Amino acid sequence: MRPILTLLTDFGTADGYVAEMKGVLLSHLSEATIVDVSHDLAAGDVDGARLAVARYWRRFPPGTVHLVVVDPGVGTARRALAVSSEGRLLVGPDNGVLSPSLLAAGARAVSLAVPAGASPTFHGRDVFAPAAARLAMGAAVDDLGDLCSDPEVRRTPEPRRRSDGTVEGQVIAVDRFGNVITNLMTRRDGTLEVAGERLPLRRTYGDASTGELVALTGSSGLVEIAVRDGSAAERLGLCRGAAVLLRPVG
Amino acid sequence: MRPILTLLTDFGTADGYVAEMKGVLLSHLSEATIVDVSHDLAAGDVDGARLAVARYWRRFPPGTVHLVVVDPGVGTARRALAVSSEGRLLVGPDNGVLSPSLLAAGARAVSLAVPAGASPTFHGRDVFAPAAARLAMGAAVDDLGDLCSDPEVRRTPEPRRRSDGTVEGQVIAVDRFGNVITNLMTRRDGTLEVAGERLPLRRTYGDASTGELVALTGSSGLVEIAVRDGSAAERLGLCRGAAVLLRPVG
Amino acid sequence: MRPILTLLTDFGTADGYVAEMKGVLLSHLSEATIVDVSHDLAAGDVDGARLAVARYWRRFPPGTVHLVVVDPGVGTARRALAVSSEGRLLVGPDNGVLSPSLLAAGARAVSLAVPAGASPTFHGRDVFAPAAARLAMGAAVDDLGDLCSDPEVRRTPEPRRRSDGTVEGQVIAVDRFGNVITNLMTRRDGTLEVAGERLPLRRTYGDASTGELVALTGSSGLVEIAVRDGSAAERLGLCRGAAVLLRPVG
Repeated sequence: MRPILTLLTDFGTADGYVAEMKGVLLSHLSEATIVDVSHDLAAGDVDGARLAVARYWRRFPPGTVHLVVVDPGVGTARRALAVSSEGRLLVGPDNGVLSPSLLAAGARAVSLAVPAGASPTFHGRDVFAPAAARLAMGAAVDDLGDLCSDPEVRRTPEPRRRSDGTVEGQVIAVDRFGNVITNLMTRRDGTLEVAGERLPLRRTYGDASTGELVALTGSSGLVEIAVRDGSAAERLGLCRGAAVLLRPVG
Repeated sequence: MRPILTLLTDFGTADGYVAEMKGVLLSHLSEATIVDVSHDLAAGDVDGARLAVARYWRRFPPGTVHLVVVDPGVGTARRALAVSSEGRLLVGPDNGVLSPSLLAAGARAVSLAVPAGASPTFHGRDVFAPAAARLAMGAAVDDLGDLCSDPEVRRTPEPRRRSDGTVEGQVIAVDRFGNVITNLMTRRDGTLEVAGERLPLRRTYGDASTGELVALTGSSGLVEIAVRDGSAAERLGLCRGAAVLLRPVG
Repeated sequence: MRPILTLLTDFGTADGYVAEMKGVLLSHLSEATIVDVSHDLAAGDVDGARLAVARYWRRFPPGTVHLVVVDPGVGTARRALAVSSEGRLLVGPDNGVLSPSLLAAGARAVSLAVPAGASPTFHGRDVFAPAAARLAMGAAVDDLGDLCSDPEVRRTPEPRRRSDGTVEGQVIAVDRFGNVITNLMTRRDGTLEVAGERLPLRRTYGDASTGELVALTGSSGLVEIAVRDGSAAERLGLCRGAAVLLRPVG
């Protein structure tokens, strides 16, 4: 089987930095399949990277190496990590971007050594890509560094259940379509209160007419707010951190 | 031969949705070659997707599976399709994006079943990607669903020939360079009238000087208007649907 | 070993032009690994392409074919080139984008013939992609055309050393993060004077606090100016061509 390596960065592509990383990977391992996740994250958006990783890291087959370089702290003392978790391998800075894999049972993290001569401003090319290539070639994470027992873990804030049965949540992301994703999960009927609107929970976009607001459970299991054929974020003026309230029914 | 799968979506890449789809594809078929067509279509731009598909679907070798997920109707009753046409296989919503393949002689379309447990808001991951993987692994379209005899077909509007020999057309697309693409085809000399300008048909950009407007036959055989080293769409204030008139000469 | 082909264009992806090129490549050579460098260069940005090529062309393994189509002169009399240099092969217009490979010792360039029927406005698809595929399949550059002894070479402007020991340089690029890259190289300590600021040369971003300006040697060996967690280009109002002065110390 050909090794699979995925890449998530905030580098954009036009400057050629991502190409440098791909060149390093293919120089080590010319038969690798390199999968672009994205290079369009907002610069330094560690939480955006973490949420994207949460979506995709387990969707790839065991043995996949996920390289995540959203690294505003490059050139500071922050550690560099390799993680083994649920059969996947992940490489990236110790700033929380790898949290979804670190929170899984049995995860194991090591601190990567910085090779002599590595550019202090481009660990993607000189630290993370070589480590990812080694993992893809069959090295174990323990071959790459010393055990790291306290990697930085960032979590999506937990919703708070009030005594009256309602649940306080917040917006954790706005996607490309303007869909507003919250930290709420529910399998019950209910109403979502957000930005002065009261939205009954529905099943899918088709349950709303064009231009109408709709609240539903999205594809990652979280409650989200959408406008059919429009942007809920724009309509409601919402961004990350905005408050939402779930009022269960029945 | 390794199976080739292409992906066209309007998802952007930053949210991780495209990566989820790639993970599904590679979990079914780790040796596949996945080709990114684009994830930057304007949200819900079915006609833009259709025109892009028209450009590329037959450029790939027979056996290629084209996955096209520009799907503003996800979660409504619109059908999901798999198409076999001229040796290529296509998967996408029944909203017209697959029209170029459906219009070819011998095309065969089936309605995809929606698997139990599929997210009603993300058929790209749960319906289309698994179907594309099955086709890439050798399944026939007829293995995937029941024959669909009336798929939605969208067509580029036909130009209209007037009694005086001129041809009324319209702008169907504006490309990244600001080139304005019309629905006109001609092999004769003539003049294009658009936005108050009269442009003789020329052969290529080199027939104009920098900053000059030029009309010519573009790389897909359609008449287009360009500004050498500039944007014709901006210069002339044109967008999709704007009227153009071709006045043949001789 | 599977052939590796990289692609750098200014086409964007949404129109399907890049997909057409990928289809041509895979029709010739279905087992190729196609690597997207970028399709997001500013339209016609020959110097941006040249600087990106300088970064990545030698990072890929020998035998790699680099396809570079930033070609504002398509359809004019400009030549089309294939280059062999340091074991890599490059294909693109004769406008300077391939300069980094042409400047290496032993580089060999040929002029590509334009095949009959090639679209005069899309050499990427009809001239460069077929030539790249032939190289990837094992052809030598000399099989593709006649020797070109005077390809266009564009160079980054040289810094100028003044009699007082200071060095006059300029900004050659601004990257995605707003880092300002100059044409200066130095291994000595010193101070960079730019836009009214005097910045001591430091080692890495971690040597500055958040929001602070810092000058350092970047990952390609050139002096650059950054703002930790911000944009130096925005802060200082700098773009390509702006003057900088290096005042060595000691």
